[in-house]
Amino acid sequence: MLRAIEHRGGKVLILDQSKLPHHIEDVECSDWRQVADCIKTLKIRGAPAIGIAAAMGAALGADSIKAGDFEEFIRKLEPVLSGLLSTRPTAVNLKWALERAKGRAFAEREHPVADIKEALWREAEEIHAEDIAANKAIGRWGAQFIKDGDTILTHCNAGALATGGYGTATAPIFVAHEEGRKINVIVDETRPVLQGARLTALEMKEAGIPATLITDNSAGALMRKGEIDLAIVGTDRTARNGDVANKIGTYSVAVLARENGVPFYVAAPMSSIDFAMPSGDMIPVEERSEDEVFHIGGVRIAPHGIKARNMAFDITPARYVTAIITELGAFRPKDIKKLNGPALAELNLEEIRL
Amino acid sequence: MLRAIEHRGGKVLILDQSKLPHHIEDVECSDWRQVADCIKTLKIRGAPAIGIAAAMGAALGADSIKAGDFEEFIRKLEPVLSGLLSTRPTAVNLKWALERAKGRAFAEREHPVADIKEALWREAEEIHAEDIAANKAIGRWGAQFIKDGDTILTHCNAGALATGGYGTATAPIFVAHEEGRKINVIVDETRPVLQGARLTALEMKEAGIPATLITDNSAGALMRKGEIDLAIVGTDRTARNGDVANKIGTYSVAVLARENGVPFYVAAPMSSIDFAMPSGDMIPVEERSEDEVFHIGGVRIAPHGIKARNMAFDITPARYVTAIITELGAFRPKDIKKLNGPALAELNLEEIRL
Repeated sequence: MLRAIEHRGGKVLILDQSKLPHHIEDVECSDWRQVADCIKTLKIRGAPAIGIAAAMGAALGADSIKAGDFEEFIRKLEPVLSGLLSTRPTAVNLKWALERAKGRAFAEREHPVADIKEALWREAEEIHAEDIAANKAIGRWGAQFIKDGDTILTHCNAGALATGGYGTATAPIFVAHEEGRKINVIVDETRPVLQGARLTALEMKEAGIPATLITDNSAGALMRKGEIDLAIVGTDRTARNGDVANKIGTYSVAVLARENGVPFYVAAPMSSIDFAMPSGDMIPVEERSEDEVFHIGGVRIAPHGIKARNMAFDITPARYVTAIITELGAFRPKDIKKLNGPALAELNLEEIRL
Repeated sequence: MLRAIEHRGGKVLILDQSKLPHHIEDVECSDWRQVADCIKTLKIRGAPAIGIAAAMGAALGADSIKAGDFEEFIRKLEPVLSGLLSTRPTAVNLKWALERAKGRAFAEREHPVADIKEALWREAEEIHAEDIAANKAIGRWGAQFIKDGDTILTHCNAGALATGGYGTATAPIFVAHEEGRKINVIVDETRPVLQGARLTALEMKEAGIPATLITDNSAGALMRKGEIDLAIVGTDRTARNGDVANKIGTYSVAVLARENGVPFYVAAPMSSIDFAMPSGDMIPVEERSEDEVFHIGGVRIAPHGIKARNMAFDITPARYVTAIITELGAFRPKDIKKLNGPALAELNLEEIRL
């Protein structure tokens, strides 16, 4: 499986995703500024992956600090943390991971500086391991829906490259493959930015899972021909009523799936469920530059003098979703709201799992 | 409106579609071999447009013949006709148009050679005019479904460039525009070959009709937002039960349209209705090269070592089709079979039109 980031021998290896799918090359970072640059220039992307990179960047920055005591150490760590934070100011996981690193440093303040440095590496590795564990849990809960011989449709890239490993939508696929089931994956190319063609197809190939690329407008015809057994997608945000915001085109896949009796699953880490959001139609949908529609790989595909619409996401109403798969289990969309807050601790998950 | 072909001053002007959308340039043909080359190299494409080009090529070839009598003339015309026929051996309209030209020559055999040459130009212009008239009739029958202020979705290019003029799916749009209705057109880019982005978008721009390009996977989301009032597409072949074969992605548009209460119209010249074909699922679907999916404008978008599926067409079952619009009127799909053969002459079309 491709991995976005790795800590090895005191250095941080970051897979340069800007060169995918044609070149699989790591950037070897021995300075925190190189990590910051990788985040800024999108060599690493995806909220969980960025968080892990920030924590590893903090540990790398700490290693280079010469300090006689904690006060000096933490004073010299501050510009490292703020430098990493400024790379992508709106990324929630970035801030969260850097606060965890800083908290760990304070928690270890009575220990020698060398031990604090070591603790920051452990913190980064814990963040990484927790993310992989959550994704593997999604994978195990999701893999129950994948039978030997199944063909699985996926859209966009909610894959290992966007996370510490395993991905979210791809996790059930990787787990089913690891458990020895023979599966095929149909990859929607996912215009305009082609995350399916560039990233998901590559992840499948590297994992040795047979993958077939299609144009987005072919998925419906394949479902109608009975050639797709189930669909699994990721989500950017899921509302408390089970409505799902995800990459443009997800809604179409969901409607075509229901029309053809194909189960439609959404892999959603608990962190992506917005319990404060009553309905999907209240989630703001980012409209991006026309240029992404007008160009592919630097080539202009349309005449000048017309307009383009480029909605980054769409909303899939809960009624089209067979199940939402989290690290706690797979649930009917209407049951997602029960997973919120203090009530969760007293919930018998067995009873509401699908 | 862009026009694919024109007879002017004894020459044939062919719009070089291989340079679209970036360069709008005619090839000026003064020799039939230039016309044949344009057909062969896809500078002109679309069944009706190819038929017109072949007939004009025959007239151009006839002009260059030096002959004292009909026998000599027709002997020297043969290599012209066979040369034009060999350009795209499977194109039905090509054969049909050349047979019409030859038939006209024989019908005029008692006249001087100069008059026969003139008759071949008139035959070509009649073929051209008949095609435009049929398309305009489709346009008038279809325009009744377009209200002032409507936004119309179309897929692929069943446009003026594929025909003598007006196109089929575009004809109702052009007629509504000419009649002064204010309309907007949403153009599906139509992967893999991007006929929507390259050709339909350009046709709208040149006609002064506001056009907005979208990725194919955006149409559903726009329909759900209530931003599309109706959809019109063309057809390569329609079965007697009203099932429609058309460019890949048409089925998805139709399903999403019905799900969102958007009327879905198919513009189909009578010549495209295959009354011998009982159902759409018996229409063979061409699978084309993987390369069209893997590349866009010469740029490879996916890793090597995976497969691709490239179905050129899909089948839209009649139940998703609001009406099939022909030059005889707009009909419910179930009524199409009544338009067949001798029965047609005795039919009261008024009674079965939508």
